[in-house]
Amino acid sequence: MNAVLQRGQGLIAWRQIADALEAEIATGALRPGAKLATEAQLATRFAVNRHTVRRALAALTERGLVRSAQGSGTFVEAAPLRYPIGPRTRFSEIATAAGREAWGRLLEAHTVLAEPWVAEALELAPGTPVLALHSRHEADGVPISAGVTYLPLPRFAGFDRLYAETGSLTRAYAAHGVTDYLRRSTQISARIAEPAEAAQLALAPGRAVLVIESVNTDAEGAVIQATRSCFAADRVTLSV
Amino acid sequence: MNAVLQRGQGLIAWRQIADALEAEIATGALRPGAKLATEAQLATRFAVNRHTVRRALAALTERGLVRSAQGSGTFVEAAPLRYPIGPRTRFSEIATAAGREAWGRLLEAHTVLAEPWVAEALELAPGTPVLALHSRHEADGVPISAGVTYLPLPRFAGFDRLYAETGSLTRAYAAHGVTDYLRRSTQISARIAEPAEAAQLALAPGRAVLVIESVNTDAEGAVIQATRSCFAADRVTLSV
Repeated sequence: MNAVLQRGQGLIAWRQIADALEAEIATGALRPGAKLATEAQLATRFAVNRHTVRRALAALTERGLVRSAQGSGTFVEAAPLRYPIGPRTRFSEIATAAGREAWGRLLEAHTVLAEPWVAEALELAPGTPVLALHSRHEADGVPISAGVTYLPLPRFAGFDRLYAETGSLTRAYAAHGVTDYLRRSTQISARIAEPAEAAQLALAPGRAVLVIESVNTDAEGAVIQATRSCFAADRVTLSV
Repeated sequence: MNAVLQRGQGLIAWRQIADALEAEIATGALRPGAKLATEAQLATRFAVNRHTVRRALAALTERGLVRSAQGSGTFVEAAPLRYPIGPRTRFSEIATAAGREAWGRLLEAHTVLAEPWVAEALELAPGTPVLALHSRHEADGVPISAGVTYLPLPRFAGFDRLYAETGSLTRAYAAHGVTDYLRRSTQISARIAEPAEAAQLALAPGRAVLVIESVNTDAEGAVIQATRSCFAADRVTLSV
């Protein structure tokens, strides 16, 4: 499809291109997850230079309609993942139920001394050593959330290796003999993503994140997990 | 308390003033809800011009530490209101339990034709006339949320007058014979406040809002309310 820009009619070129691509997303001609044509292809299609195309793509990115992935192109954002918060909140089940492939990616693991909120959540004395897992949850390869999960030691020594292998907290818990776990509490706030968070989540600067602190227990009521994560607000709708 | 700015030491004046005020907020010398000294007073105290003071206050506002109220000054933001979402979510009870005075302020009321999501939530055919209440919830006079509540007609004809008089949905429902109501569903997302929303909530431009869609039923399970509200993300922490 070629586009005719209405030159000289008071609409600047990059905005006309952004509007054209937005319309294609709205009508489904460009579907969620689809890769956009390259900058060079779009420049040819709209008969403009690449700088103008880049400006149009930046406008769509700022509005959360597309996501640029370093080195691999620009993609239409998928519909927000409907994320039920309840006693059995499991990222892997939520993503799978939505027809999307779930993966929990372990970025770093450290033994750290529990800071006050972690100690309180895990019912330990502040400064007790705990296992800290920095991880990112992805659905079809798209980052949904990134954060730090704390687990008590020595009970969960070696959990990081199991998590790295299975990509699933649920499966790593099962390997530690925890076959069921329950959400004890969830706290939800929101703010603008900090630059490092935006980078981890492949978000444009200035987008919002939902900050979720959660505490899980095993079936006997012992606390087994405290997590603080940032969710890309463009990519999830929480339901309670 | 007079301040000594470390001139010529590489810290620009407005940032030193912002840091000094932030430290007073952190230590509690300036308490949540407290009114800051006027720009003129701060200019005298720090021996700078008012432009420099304004720059410092703007930096604190952007970070959500203070809130400027048109014509009445600059105030320290209160601690976030802990907002439990459950079967009996009542703004008035939540604010009162936190020791803060609750008020639901009716801004406008109209009869409108239900748009699709409202019709679906209220279990009506799209286009059915419903009562739309534009309102703002305040705690100690500080805006917490603003949004639109939809009620079925003719059951709740006249509800807007009762709500305007009592400042409470709960009391207006009671006057309509609904002595108990239950949260059926809550959906939570987040984004940057649009300019009109920021103005309604007295938020600095670019701050985040939690967008909450909720549906309530009466004790018999009949849907009596669908609401879409923006909550100032700096002023609430949701808990589930």
